[in-house]
Amino acid sequence: MSDLRSKFMKVYSVLKAELLKDPAFEFTETSRQWIDRMVDYNVPGGKLNRGISVIDSYKLLFGGKELSDEEFFLASALGWCIEWLQAYLLVLDDIEDNSQLRRGRPCWFRLPQIGMVAVNDGIVLRNHICRILKNHFRGKPYYIDLLDLFNEVEFQTISGQMIDLITTLDGEEGEKDLSKYSLPLHHRIVQFKTSYYSFYLPVACALLMAGENLENHIDVKNTLVDMGIYYQVQDDYLDSFGDPEVVGKVGTDIEDFKCSWLVVKALECCDEDQKKLLYENYGKADQASVAKVKELYNALDLQGVFKQYESESYEKMIKSIEAHPSKAVQAVLKSFLAKIHKRQK
Amino acid sequence: MSDLRSKFMKVYSVLKAELLKDPAFEFTETSRQWIDRMVDYNVPGGKLNRGISVIDSYKLLFGGKELSDEEFFLASALGWCIEWLQAYLLVLDDIEDNSQLRRGRPCWFRLPQIGMVAVNDGIVLRNHICRILKNHFRGKPYYIDLLDLFNEVEFQTISGQMIDLITTLDGEEGEKDLSKYSLPLHHRIVQFKTSYYSFYLPVACALLMAGENLENHIDVKNTLVDMGIYYQVQDDYLDSFGDPEVVGKVGTDIEDFKCSWLVVKALECCDEDQKKLLYENYGKADQASVAKVKELYNALDLQGVFKQYESESYEKMIKSIEAHPSKAVQAVLKSFLAKIHKRQK
Repeated sequence: MSDLRSKFMKVYSVLKAELLKDPAFEFTETSRQWIDRMVDYNVPGGKLNRGISVIDSYKLLFGGKELSDEEFFLASALGWCIEWLQAYLLVLDDIEDNSQLRRGRPCWFRLPQIGMVAVNDGIVLRNHICRILKNHFRGKPYYIDLLDLFNEVEFQTISGQMIDLITTLDGEEGEKDLSKYSLPLHHRIVQFKTSYYSFYLPVACALLMAGENLENHIDVKNTLVDMGIYYQVQDDYLDSFGDPEVVGKVGTDIEDFKCSWLVVKALECCDEDQKKLLYENYGKADQASVAKVKELYNALDLQGVFKQYESESYEKMIKSIEAHPSKAVQAVLKSFLAKIHKRQK
Repeated sequence: MSDLRSKFMKVYSVLKAELLKDPAFEFTETSRQWIDRMVDYNVPGGKLNRGISVIDSYKLLFGGKELSDEEFFLASALGWCIEWLQAYLLVLDDIEDNSQLRRGRPCWFRLPQIGMVAVNDGIVLRNHICRILKNHFRGKPYYIDLLDLFNEVEFQTISGQMIDLITTLDGEEGEKDLSKYSLPLHHRIVQFKTSYYSFYLPVACALLMAGENLENHIDVKNTLVDMGIYYQVQDDYLDSFGDPEVVGKVGTDIEDFKCSWLVVKALECCDEDQKKLLYENYGKADQASVAKVKELYNALDLQGVFKQYESESYEKMIKSIEAHPSKAVQAVLKSFLAKIHKRQK
């Protein structure tokens, strides 16, 4: 583990220890152990990119300077709030989607004795964010802005999740309806469900800590939201065209009837016969149907369409980044973009 | 409907209309209709006592004066935030408890096409509170305190729900274990799961609106928490000893193996034979078992034990209310107590 990651993990231990002796609640021994195990199972097991990028962004805003111990702790605490937010969203998403696995292990609600207690556990994780913010930021001049930021980003995320859930609901007779999928819908789901919390939130946290007013950074928000959409389009592309060995998993978007960028692009540029083929085969579990959809993707040259999208988006984002008056902010945005540009996994 | 209730309902319509055009999210037509229906189904159908008591309390803090239109609207908006909080908690509780009915209708998640989307809907309701607070209180000097208050009370409520859920979990072999139930545990569950949000929160909202600092009102909090516990003990008592015609429902706490005040009192004052009878019959669905438990409650004179608890608690609460330096605060607390003292339903 890198030095940065291990320092970041140390902050996790401090924050968790504080939560386990929160004076606002009288724990029983059983409930303290429950929370301890639940937090360990769900919060720190991901890649931690979102959390660590708060620290990276804050550093870059000050020209890459070394952080004081206090600055490092506070930036890490905000990073962990984002990881806690992610954990909360995933615990509940897995229940909503009736999923089996998360991060290579059974979903929390699948464990023996957990079941629907996991709904309350998800809520507990969400509440931990407010406890952490109150413990460490209550006296800061940007405390209100932090609360408003987390509240607004959470609202946007679950609103995106809502349109995702209700558009992919089967019809009243259980039928799947591809005609609901379109590029604007895809864009809207990704923007709200993923971009705000994964791309904008870490940078917004760093900006607030640096004393900035977020209302002066609408352009930063827009660029980061665009990056989030670009990231998701890559994800959708790699699901069908990536190398499973490199990506680390075998894609199942076609079988799962996902509102993927590939299927909405295919719908956009196909003729009537191809459309019929899509309607008949998309969302079916058998490998023959999946193969037909993939053949169609090839026939429509979606690889080429993606390459073009990728370079156009990249140009557009670079342009808007370089238009930014602050070199420090440019550095933050460029570091995000560099991490994802032309990624293969 | 009383004039007050219909004025209160008008505020609901205004708040809901604002939420349906929240600029932080781009609604699709389907998602706007979904939220509209979901909020109508879950938020306004209860007794609205918690919400309306914010208005009553605020009035009493100013000697019963008539409120200006703005004051009425703001007090109502805070009242509705509590109703929204209640709706959010109930939507998720019903999933956690696998319940069938709520307020005489199917639970939200039981409706066709809803299912586990209800988890996200519950979260949406919780997020609405922050939206309402931001829309109407962002500029107020007590805005931070309001956010902290709602955050802390929510944390206490779901922590209480957690101990309730995990203590009533069956053992690893599915066995029910009465030995976990005790008066301190009952007290702790009720205090956290119910008292803070049902009794303290409405008064705390009124105090903040009146410009008070909540740290100066710890005694008010303690008295209201005691009232909440008293209220729940009445509830538990009426479940077995109330008149179903008057209470409006037939109690099932015995069948449901609830950690009721009656069973913990029974455990406290029974002999070994009676304890054996309780262990054998509590939590069984057949009417013979239920009858045996009720006979035991009678043999132990739990009616008498309750009457004594009731009058002792009442005396204690009156005494602590009358020790309060402010006549206006006394009036608020006495009005709460009068509503619940010796209630039959």
